[in-house]
Amino acid sequence: MTADSLAATGYRSIIQLPIQWGDQDAFGHVNNTIPIRWFESSRIAYLDHSGMDALLEAAGLGPILASIRCDYRRQLRYPDTVWVGAKVTQLKNSSLTMVHTVWSEREQSVAAEGDSTVVVFDYQANRPRRIPNEIRQALSRFEGDLPA
Amino acid sequence: MTADSLAATGYRSIIQLPIQWGDQDAFGHVNNTIPIRWFESSRIAYLDHSGMDALLEAAGLGPILASIRCDYRRQLRYPDTVWVGAKVTQLKNSSLTMVHTVWSEREQSVAAEGDSTVVVFDYQANRPRRIPNEIRQALSRFEGDLPA
Amino acid sequence: MTADSLAATGYRSIIQLPIQWGDQDAFGHVNNTIPIRWFESSRIAYLDHSGMDALLEAAGLGPILASIRCDYRRQLRYPDTVWVGAKVTQLKNSSLTMVHTVWSEREQSVAAEGDSTVVVFDYQANRPRRIPNEIRQALSRFEGDLPA
Amino acid sequence: MTADSLAATGYRSIIQLPIQWGDQDAFGHVNNTIPIRWFESSRIAYLDHSGMDALLEAAGLGPILASIRCDYRRQLRYPDTVWVGAKVTQLKNSSLTMVHTVWSEREQSVAAEGDSTVVVFDYQANRPRRIPNEIRQALSRFEGDLPA
Repeated sequence: MTADSLAATGYRSIIQLPIQWGDQDAFGHVNNTIPIRWFESSRIAYLDHSGMDALLEAAGLGPILASIRCDYRRQLRYPDTVWVGAKVTQLKNSSLTMVHTVWSEREQSVAAEGDSTVVVFDYQANRPRRIPNEIRQALSRFEGDLPA
Repeated sequence: MTADSLAATGYRSIIQLPIQWGDQDAFGHVNNTIPIRWFESSRIAYLDHSGMDALLEAAGLGPILASIRCDYRRQLRYPDTVWVGAKVTQLKNSSLTMVHTVWSEREQSVAAEGDSTVVVFDYQANRPRRIPNEIRQALSRFEGDLPA
Repeated sequence: MTADSLAATGYRSIIQLPIQWGDQDAFGHVNNTIPIRWFESSRIAYLDHSGMDALLEAAGLGPILASIRCDYRRQLRYPDTVWVGAKVTQLKNSSLTMVHTVWSEREQSVAAEGDSTVVVFDYQANRPRRIPNEIRQALSRFEGDLPA
Repeated sequence: MTADSLAATGYRSIIQLPIQWGDQDAFGHVNNTIPIRWFESSRIAYLDHSGMDALLEAAGLGPILASIRCDYRRQLRYPDTVWVGAKVTQLKNSSLTMVHTVWSEREQSVAAEGDSTVVVFDYQANRPRRIPNEIRQALSRFEGDLPA
């Protein structure tokens, strides 16, 4: 499994990243902040791949990260390459849940899993805003059906 | 509120950290990985302040981070100083839950909250190990009574 | 020596920063990118302390980092606190040289030294610009006389 | 130009790295610490590619970074991919000079250049040590002739 297996488990947006030596900390493993950076990179890639980024910008809206969760499954080391999948699994009124899975080539295993809660924010009104219908439709097309 | 208020809400281990300009990302706010780094710093400080670090080492054990969760309450900017409290709120068989609160001086508000799950690991046996009684007693003395 | 000694060696702009555990890499010492971050923080503080930041902004100008140099004098470890001084030592036509010294409390020694070359950039004209006289005068007042 | 052009300019050790969104700072460009991290990654790769890493370890020696220099040629932005070449250009008694070049695919240009001074350290004797002949020969084979 690499990108193929992440795709098989439903990820349509997948990025590949090398582990750098300096990603490791004094315990000799990849530091716990690094998968959080990978989640961020996969969120940014997802917004681009799904077309959501352009739709948000056209509507004067932007994404704000409200929360993050990460389960560390394996200790990683340099050298290695990870594949990171992101998918939206739930759309609420003004927020969505994005799930992330990190796959390690060296470990041939899931290395970290987690999710982000992203709020759609109206910068002019300075408050959260209901996710517009065209974004809901774009995400449903990109992901297949999504629960409300 | 600063260290005093975190102490009033039950934090016995509190650290103070300056926000650096470079902690900000292209959105112009402190990047979401930075509070995760602060949580780490507060975990390390807690292990030292509570005496748990020395007891783990004497027993040939070490802490492994199993999961992390963070709710981002405020967008932070340079310059600012944060106070980060950590406390153990639950002891299970071989793991514990540590809660973290980040207080921003500039915002005069909680900026982030979250928790870590830390597993006590036996490096010789290469598997998790029941938290020894002397560590349970040390943490109870440090925190007051803890739920089992 | 701490801030006092840096001041004695001619630093008028000095910041204090804690070393975080996660600043250390797999060699068990503070990673070589961290003093470069400290240099950045001391540049930003200098621009503020000297008043240069406000003068640049009023003139529609901004600083761009052209080069950096760092000599690593001591290997640093957590826990420690560093003091970082910055001073402008040379003003050329459209650029200036800023010198940085990092002092370690734990080592009671200079831990890193280096310098930055900063270009004054005109964002409207999209090219470097001669450093305006009022900035030269402000820096001379802040530092004492500066070589041309 | 990509890896081919770096190879044409004499680089035998070249790595490829993606720019992550979070590598950008509040100025909206890749932060100045990031090329320093790329230099580190290219040093680590060079030690492996040249065989120097194994020879150092067999001799009870290790590399210590004594100084770094970086000229920033272009402001970089996400998304982009960089290629980073490293080569040893000078061997002194107990230290060597390694040169680094960063090539940006998006800019089709050199984005940063610099060098590292690496000291060969004897951890038992706790002091620098003359670079052994078998390492000099291995580097000459890897690079072609090197100045003394």
